[in-house]
Amino acid sequence: MPVRYQPAAADTILPVSGVCLGAAAAHIKDWTRNDVLLIDCAPGTVAAAVFTRNRFCAAPVIVSKEHLMAQRQQGKSLRGIVVNAGNANAGTGAKGLSHARQTCEEAAKLLLCTPDEIMVCSTGVIMEPLPVEKLIAALPAAAGNCDTSGAAWISAAQAIMTTDTVHKAASAQVIIDGEPVTITGIAKGAGMIHPDMATLLTFIACDAPIAADVWQSIWREIATQTFNSITIDGDTSTNDTLIAMATGKAKVPPFKNVRDPRLVVLKEGLLNVASSLAQAIVRDGEGASKFITIDVEGQDYETCRRVAFSVAHSPLVKTAFFASDPNLGRIICAIGNAMPEAFDPGRVSLWLDDVLVVDKGGRAVSYREEDGQRVMAQEEIHVRIDLGHELNRKAKATVWTCDLSHDYVTINTEYRT
Amino acid sequence: MPVRYQPAAADTILPVSGVCLGAAAAHIKDWTRNDVLLIDCAPGTVAAAVFTRNRFCAAPVIVSKEHLMAQRQQGKSLRGIVVNAGNANAGTGAKGLSHARQTCEEAAKLLLCTPDEIMVCSTGVIMEPLPVEKLIAALPAAAGNCDTSGAAWISAAQAIMTTDTVHKAASAQVIIDGEPVTITGIAKGAGMIHPDMATLLTFIACDAPIAADVWQSIWREIATQTFNSITIDGDTSTNDTLIAMATGKAKVPPFKNVRDPRLVVLKEGLLNVASSLAQAIVRDGEGASKFITIDVEGQDYETCRRVAFSVAHSPLVKTAFFASDPNLGRIICAIGNAMPEAFDPGRVSLWLDDVLVVDKGGRAVSYREEDGQRVMAQEEIHVRIDLGHELNRKAKATVWTCDLSHDYVTINTEYRT
Repeated sequence: MPVRYQPAAADTILPVSGVCLGAAAAHIKDWTRNDVLLIDCAPGTVAAAVFTRNRFCAAPVIVSKEHLMAQRQQGKSLRGIVVNAGNANAGTGAKGLSHARQTCEEAAKLLLCTPDEIMVCSTGVIMEPLPVEKLIAALPAAAGNCDTSGAAWISAAQAIMTTDTVHKAASAQVIIDGEPVTITGIAKGAGMIHPDMATLLTFIACDAPIAADVWQSIWREIATQTFNSITIDGDTSTNDTLIAMATGKAKVPPFKNVRDPRLVVLKEGLLNVASSLAQAIVRDGEGASKFITIDVEGQDYETCRRVAFSVAHSPLVKTAFFASDPNLGRIICAIGNAMPEAFDPGRVSLWLDDVLVVDKGGRAVSYREEDGQRVMAQEEIHVRIDLGHELNRKAKATVWTCDLSHDYVTINTEYRT
Repeated sequence: MPVRYQPAAADTILPVSGVCLGAAAAHIKDWTRNDVLLIDCAPGTVAAAVFTRNRFCAAPVIVSKEHLMAQRQQGKSLRGIVVNAGNANAGTGAKGLSHARQTCEEAAKLLLCTPDEIMVCSTGVIMEPLPVEKLIAALPAAAGNCDTSGAAWISAAQAIMTTDTVHKAASAQVIIDGEPVTITGIAKGAGMIHPDMATLLTFIACDAPIAADVWQSIWREIATQTFNSITIDGDTSTNDTLIAMATGKAKVPPFKNVRDPRLVVLKEGLLNVASSLAQAIVRDGEGASKFITIDVEGQDYETCRRVAFSVAHSPLVKTAFFASDPNLGRIICAIGNAMPEAFDPGRVSLWLDDVLVVDKGGRAVSYREEDGQRVMAQEEIHVRIDLGHELNRKAKATVWTCDLSHDYVTINTEYRT
């Protein structure tokens, strides 16, 4: 069960003009559910993407990167995305690459475009050959099911699930130049998967007309604040991919450069959807019983972020959250491990929700164990760390994570077969 | 129960001339066992030390660093070490520093030396005031118990235990210039502790006569290969300390510079003792059911080491070891996360013991699941990774670790009180 997360109902998910989604069952594993998704994008759709930095990145990641570059260089559209669950097509060498390319060719025939206008994503078991014939055979059915409705988005979110316990979808609307601009996205989880590594996949569409370079730069920024600010257990999969589509169908004048003042409002809407999806992934993390927000303030963003991730990754801190134990030593130890040489631990303060726990490097005089205990027993916990900073320089980083529970070990030790 | 580790019996531990050890019960926590150790070193003893890099380092670490520097600058000896279990004296501010200094002053009175000839170590709960009066009150009894015997070393190893399930001690002897040189050491565990962060403490004595700078440079090298090449769960405590004593009592001409060819033999003996103790800490890691050696070969040592630690730290890899699951995807994913941009994953090979699993970036043709399964079911597993390298450049890093089990979560979620 996810931590305080109610999966979205179809009537809360807004269609994005220019985007149709269709799911089908390819039986890639021994299952009957839908496991293939085809997203059909209107001509003129501009893509931005963020990919895994894992050096063993999967064949579909390599091919999607190539195709995105071709679209940019030749001013082409993103016309479609093919996603499959059940097999990651990773660690599969030249054969895997050829399977990913073949998938794009077949989708291009259905969508009447060129193969480099298609992007492709896979999630599932690593180092097993992709049953590409099954995937290709299911594409016409997926195309036949294509629809713009909220229900189609939900069904798409369900088709890409692996060990996610719930589907993840979110929508937002902002008003720009008096016109509504709609943003809808789906994601699948980073809960690590029986049988294998999970992949974070997310697809977000917006009907704003926007130049490709502006769109990419926005997503680099938003991904850092959202999907790259969550951690379940610190592993990065071979297949992680975010693809953002801008269809240009909204009736607002185009966004042509990064200094367009209207971007403030657009970004707010995009951040809203991306944050919801990123948080949903953590709330549905494997074995998660608590949702933890870690805010770190200090002189510079990089240090704040390093400290936040050090706390979020520490297995000792994560088990303390699971145990509802306000174990201060573990938190300050994780902070100390991430701080640069020059830092003065005597400037560090720490709060659990509104309870001051560490005051300038030592236990706060006002701190009572029962107050810390009360906060740690909550399902949702806010950890705030102030590293100290000069008055005129202040940075802040936020990371979302979950606890480390018995269920995490259980889920990840069940044998793959 | 530690993984294939038999704690040393007193008659296998060799006395080191010039070093006496005495333990006593200070009742720092609500317990009756010995929890204070006094090590008395003969005049002329030279110290080398390696300390935690955690920025929240404990008061005893700060004071011991100061005293080591004073000994160097003034050509003084290390005359004694005071160790207590049960309280880490960390996160205790100015009061904690004054307690650590007071401890050195009292020990100096007993050993007829100056306070800066004493070093001090603590392990136990963080951010609680050290009951320094209890510690000081126990010092005369500890001094009265001082003895050079193997039994005294074992009793010392027991006095510094926290959640270690067994004491850790090791000895070696090498022959230099026809004379025996003896090395004996004790350590306590990095299993993370109920009630709190564990500390890795280790004290190693050798009777070789050796210049302080040579001794320090040897230990920097050996610590990297041993105590800094182990990981239970990736956390570094606020109190980690290694102190190496060279008493100069052996009848061999002094080692005066780092190019002395006899150092090869001496280092072999030191490495032997340090490796035994470092491995013992992993074998007795919290919840450990398997002992894993990760060897990484490649072009440069830093990359090899980063890859080895990435594999050793991955919770997904660690749970796969616990589950005896040859989950290749998780291991190559951990490798991919640590490799630099320029690396070619197509050059990577991976063995589990003698079984070739990944061949040049893909699943080995000869690999059969049951072979991987057989190796993963063992209590002791050897993972070998070859990142690929030019013929004339080859580096290798070794890291020792354990699996991540249900018991780890259980031990670390039990409440502190």
